Amino acid sequence: MTSTGTRGAIMLAEIGEQPASMDRLLADGLADIRAVARTVAAAAPRFVLLAARGTSDHAALYAKYLLETRLGLPVGLVSPSTLTVFGATPDFRDVLWISVSQSGGSPDLVESTTRARQCGALTVAVTNVAGSPLNQASELSIDVLAGPEKAVAATKSYTSELMALYLLVDAWAGGDAQAVRAIPQQAQQVVDRSEATRVAPRYRFVDRLVLTGRGFAYPTAREAALKLMETSYLSAHAFSSADLMHGPLAMIDEDRPVIAVVPHGLGGAAMVPVLERLGERGADVLVVGDSSLATNPADTIWLPGDVDENVAPMLQIIPLQQLAAAMAVARGYDPDAPRGLRKVTETL
Amino acid sequence: MTSTGTRGAIMLAEIGEQPASMDRLLADGLADIRAVARTVAAAAPRFVLLAARGTSDHAALYAKYLLETRLGLPVGLVSPSTLTVFGATPDFRDVLWISVSQSGGSPDLVESTTRARQCGALTVAVTNVAGSPLNQASELSIDVLAGPEKAVAATKSYTSELMALYLLVDAWAGGDAQAVRAIPQQAQQVVDRSEATRVAPRYRFVDRLVLTGRGFAYPTAREAALKLMETSYLSAHAFSSADLMHGPLAMIDEDRPVIAVVPHGLGGAAMVPVLERLGERGADVLVVGDSSLATNPADTIWLPGDVDENVAPMLQIIPLQQLAAAMAVARGYDPDAPRGLRKVTETL
Repeated sequence: MTSTGTRGAIMLAEIGEQPASMDRLLADGLADIRAVARTVAAAAPRFVLLAARGTSDHAALYAKYLLETRLGLPVGLVSPSTLTVFGATPDFRDVLWISVSQSGGSPDLVESTTRARQCGALTVAVTNVAGSPLNQASELSIDVLAGPEKAVAATKSYTSELMALYLLVDAWAGGDAQAVRAIPQQAQQVVDRSEATRVAPRYRFVDRLVLTGRGFAYPTAREAALKLMETSYLSAHAFSSADLMHGPLAMIDEDRPVIAVVPHGLGGAAMVPVLERLGERGADVLVVGDSSLATNPADTIWLPGDVDENVAPMLQIIPLQQLAAAMAVARGYDPDAPRGLRKVTETL
Repeated sequence: MTSTGTRGAIMLAEIGEQPASMDRLLADGLADIRAVARTVAAAAPRFVLLAARGTSDHAALYAKYLLETRLGLPVGLVSPSTLTVFGATPDFRDVLWISVSQSGGSPDLVESTTRARQCGALTVAVTNVAGSPLNQASELSIDVLAGPEKAVAATKSYTSELMALYLLVDAWAGGDAQAVRAIPQQAQQVVDRSEATRVAPRYRFVDRLVLTGRGFAYPTAREAALKLMETSYLSAHAFSSADLMHGPLAMIDEDRPVIAVVPHGLGGAAMVPVLERLGERGADVLVVGDSSLATNPADTIWLPGDVDENVAPMLQIIPLQQLAAAMAVARGYDPDAPRGLRKVTETL
């Protein structure tokens, strides 16, 4: 165990690097991403499959919403075991297969991507390690340029994956990347405000927590839950707000706080009835984003208001990463060294 | 609150009806399902999208594995909000859209199915209420014939949905339904053994629990977690065993037991390294299925061994449904009346 003063120093430093790493991606990565987008657009895929695990799977989920809404394509998240454990030989003509992985080293992703390519898919690897096995297995590659990530709990690679996937879809759709130009500067505002410092004491003794969001905000809820599980060992559950109403609502009570990611926009508006039901159940709710929808204005984490909800995930996660690190340190854990975890996870 | 003697009586009765309801589906429903399968096969869809919520979403996840392995089709689980909240207008030519819902009454499923049909998809509704709004919105319908389901916590509709989806995929693939002929009788064995009675005391004071499985067994882990959440208000987390290794493993400790669904077969074999890692972490593990993989033979729930893992989910969930009911009753809750829930969930 490291000394109290340095616990979480690596994770917090990488959280703080996110404005710079996203800025770097915009400056140095966009041209390459546009070249990949041109190749993809020329192939005119009709169906997209996304393959990822852990944090990168949440970036993939974000890309799913984006591909469906911007490009109108049917999209699926892959169950790699279908290919790697059960040996299916699918027909992947007209399929674009996008794998997302910080390390590009997970054997099951490499194997399933290799199989997908053999089965006819056009394969794109989105990684933070150029030349990784996943890049070698794929026809096309995107480097998210987040720089070496040392903390076991991924932070900057996540936001850079989100932005890289946004830029790919945006370029494919003929966009000009305008909607994310201000993101690095806004991310700096969010990092500097460090809202988590203010709200962390509220959760000092919580061991069960629910996170929720709808649409583009749902991946944020999922990723925040994972950060809390892997650094503070909480039972942090994430539900899409629609699924929350199907059963899990029953477990919400006064002792199980809820963090609701509520962007300004249609997805945020769709949260209104959910926040009402949570209110009826006496739930303790913290709103991340649109504070006008919080019962108590103090129960909010601020985010810039003038951000389209389809790019807001690049900002929403930042205070929740900070919260995970702060909660871990307050409990005497070292978020830089979660028990039982390795940086590259090997599943077959 | 009902008296102790009758708490959970409705849910337990419906759990016990499952052998008969699956038998009825085989006897009375197969001809209609085969007719739907012929129409689907003639349309030769190239992609499949599955739309569902809650328990039915776990049946959809099962169907995803089946469609991928038996038919080699790319499959996605739908995010209905893409269509209902964000108003996407996708290109769904060559897409088969299968919606799954006990009631057929969820407005977001009805609306997204209507939109999917307008966008060119061939639509099939799998419901337990013939003539429901979802059936009316869809070109083709399958009635799972589970009979009226009164408990808020769905049980018999789940196993009948699993079997109906199996029969659809099997018929589409040219199968003869042979692999499920013995399921009703095997389900009766599982119901009668009531293994949950023996293991329930072990979990009397647990409030956080993890369920895991790989491939076809993963939907069982998801559905069991939902049953535990909605009847006993536990923090019951389900992870695919591959995802568990990416972060959530850190939260496993001596106080957070694990229930691992381990079928006989490839998916069960893929669990071996996972069970080893859990062993290293000192986790308390209960194995449902292949008892040869349990550290301690007492830490198992029996299931018939001569069942293919791609139909075993119809049996696996039964003792876990019984466990959820038993745990709720032991805690003084009424699983027939979970707090805060309604039978038909209305999300838009």
